[in-house]
Amino acid sequence: MKPVHFHIEAQDGEARAGVLTTRRGQIETPVFMPVGTAGTVKGIRFEELESADLDARIILGNTYHLWLRPGIDVIRSAGGLHRFIGWDRALLTDSGGFQVWSLGALRKITEEGTEFRSHVDGSLKFLSPEVSMEVQAALGSDIVMAFDECAPGKAGHEETERSMNLTTRWTKRSKDAFDRLQSEDADTGRREVEGLSGRQALFGIVQGASHLDLRRRSLEQTVEIGFDGYAIGGLSVGEEKSVMFDVIDDVAPRMPKDKPRYLMGVGTPEDLVEAVARGIDMFDCVLPTRNGRTGQAFTSRGKLNIKNAQWTNDSRPLDESCRCSVCRRHSRAYVRHLYMSGEMLAGILLTHHNLAFFLDTMRGVRQSIRSGDFPKFRREFTGRLDANGE
Amino acid sequence: MKPVHFHIEAQDGEARAGVLTTRRGQIETPVFMPVGTAGTVKGIRFEELESADLDARIILGNTYHLWLRPGIDVIRSAGGLHRFIGWDRALLTDSGGFQVWSLGALRKITEEGTEFRSHVDGSLKFLSPEVSMEVQAALGSDIVMAFDECAPGKAGHEETERSMNLTTRWTKRSKDAFDRLQSEDADTGRREVEGLSGRQALFGIVQGASHLDLRRRSLEQTVEIGFDGYAIGGLSVGEEKSVMFDVIDDVAPRMPKDKPRYLMGVGTPEDLVEAVARGIDMFDCVLPTRNGRTGQAFTSRGKLNIKNAQWTNDSRPLDESCRCSVCRRHSRAYVRHLYMSGEMLAGILLTHHNLAFFLDTMRGVRQSIRSGDFPKFRREFTGRLDANGE
Repeated sequence: MKPVHFHIEAQDGEARAGVLTTRRGQIETPVFMPVGTAGTVKGIRFEELESADLDARIILGNTYHLWLRPGIDVIRSAGGLHRFIGWDRALLTDSGGFQVWSLGALRKITEEGTEFRSHVDGSLKFLSPEVSMEVQAALGSDIVMAFDECAPGKAGHEETERSMNLTTRWTKRSKDAFDRLQSEDADTGRREVEGLSGRQALFGIVQGASHLDLRRRSLEQTVEIGFDGYAIGGLSVGEEKSVMFDVIDDVAPRMPKDKPRYLMGVGTPEDLVEAVARGIDMFDCVLPTRNGRTGQAFTSRGKLNIKNAQWTNDSRPLDESCRCSVCRRHSRAYVRHLYMSGEMLAGILLTHHNLAFFLDTMRGVRQSIRSGDFPKFRREFTGRLDANGE
Repeated sequence: MKPVHFHIEAQDGEARAGVLTTRRGQIETPVFMPVGTAGTVKGIRFEELESADLDARIILGNTYHLWLRPGIDVIRSAGGLHRFIGWDRALLTDSGGFQVWSLGALRKITEEGTEFRSHVDGSLKFLSPEVSMEVQAALGSDIVMAFDECAPGKAGHEETERSMNLTTRWTKRSKDAFDRLQSEDADTGRREVEGLSGRQALFGIVQGASHLDLRRRSLEQTVEIGFDGYAIGGLSVGEEKSVMFDVIDDVAPRMPKDKPRYLMGVGTPEDLVEAVARGIDMFDCVLPTRNGRTGQAFTSRGKLNIKNAQWTNDSRPLDESCRCSVCRRHSRAYVRHLYMSGEMLAGILLTHHNLAFFLDTMRGVRQSIRSGDFPKFRREFTGRLDANGE
């Protein structure tokens, strides 16, 4: 019973265009996954995510957030995360490890797992590979992430090696716990949803901060355990951008060619295009939603700060090249007025446009790889981004 | 050149079902107008207002808010309020009088007008019948409201009489200024939009607080000046609900039968049905949007507080009788989770459902008047509202 099937259909240099078949439908790659932290992609309805101008095929849910609130009992009783939130397309859940590190008041990391205080109610919590796998089985997501430890972006070699080796041991325990849970039929999604074929998929995560030798060793150890896909974690966490691309340049070509490659938590539109050029297939990032709520539009000509007084009377859409429902209907002047007035609709419209821009960029990326024009697409895309000059 | 045409098509007791033809399309009455204070109905996109489950035919804009921010120059330069916000259906704007009274730091009321401090930037502002008409001409709304003074709900006879007489004089000045502005082609909407037939319509407002003799005199004086429609103002401002219905009982039957009757700022779903039974045709109220943002759902079985722990695992929609897009897709448990997590989507979904419920209630009201079943509709509607018992 294959959980995911991945097939490369076209390649242009290192850039790959493929199809990831999950138990909830086919996803063309390279793909961008909007982030639905607490069971909602912030500021947007699921109908809009499904609408033609966005057409998001997979979104991400955060295990840490959902585990703390509403809690696993609520979601299991609803029949899994898909049913709880009302989303029938694919869902990937992260392991919670990164959020413990970035959000929780971390108390202690031991061989067994991590102890921390909940950011919701301050209670003491314990997360381990086994707990993470249990929670993700209860969520019934289609792609499950192994539980890892994330070293700081600028961590030294010794600290990173200790962390990376711990991640490997946790990754092995994740795989064992995952296999046991699947055989015990603990996957809420499959148990509750009629006609859903296939088990959950499990992805392993490569760590090692900026140390290429450790990254390579992490990759080897992770591949040896064996997963349905492989992620590069611990990037975009404060290191220089050149460091991020050095790691991708080194790691991506060594990753299994027949499995999806997922760059976690990255990035800007230009980061996405550059990472695709280096062989990455999957992305998630909060930038389009988070920055939308704080007044920033991503456009084909670069970033646009809607607070800027120069838009006061500007009747042009956020992006003159964009065909999303926001750009077809509303002006910069109007969105600026909404933002300056503190109206919810500002965040709603900017979020929609930003997601449309990210998803449409990936659409262009896929088409250009298939037609062998990716280098041209990449050059023109990057050239246009500088045009705005804001 | 008729600005609005109003035609009663069916009557059941005092309840009237008609068609209000504005220069931007036909509106079946009785009608509920969602409130779009600052150029946005808070928390909802225009696409949703136009969607089949809401199908709002007319929304309200607040002159006071739009005048202060973004200001008339911005809206005039965009080609009027419709173009600025991206809404092609009918718009009614209030006069700003009520907001000066309720929101501004009021400095002084003189015969000439009102002086107050802006709630946006604290600057000193002056609003008068002439200024209000100029602003509403610049907005280019389809229905303009005369500038009135609103006496407190519990004002004594002498204070109310003084205020009512001032309103009458301001109403006359509103009419004169409005006529002059129309002849000067100051209506941005008609000047900017091709194919838009007809001038703006002007409604007069009946004041007089709870004093029926003053209400009758206000009505006579307003009708004598002559308007396209007549509103009852100064209700739902703190008085007892029985007082409100006493005023409507007395005033509505004396209002011109061939003109639309608009009850301003009212009310709950039951208030709407009860006011229709007394001959009212038009309503606006912030309850569905404002209460939606604070976690309250209006349902066919009464109000539902989504914060209530009893909904934690409740897989039922907000309203089991509702066919809106929110109730078709999401559970109480999910909306509660969103609300408790402080997610924007909670307000977005509750706002959509509440507006669907208000607009659908009016749809039921219209159908039952046309089929002669309004008394039955009213009885069953009111009976169901008590069922929830929350």
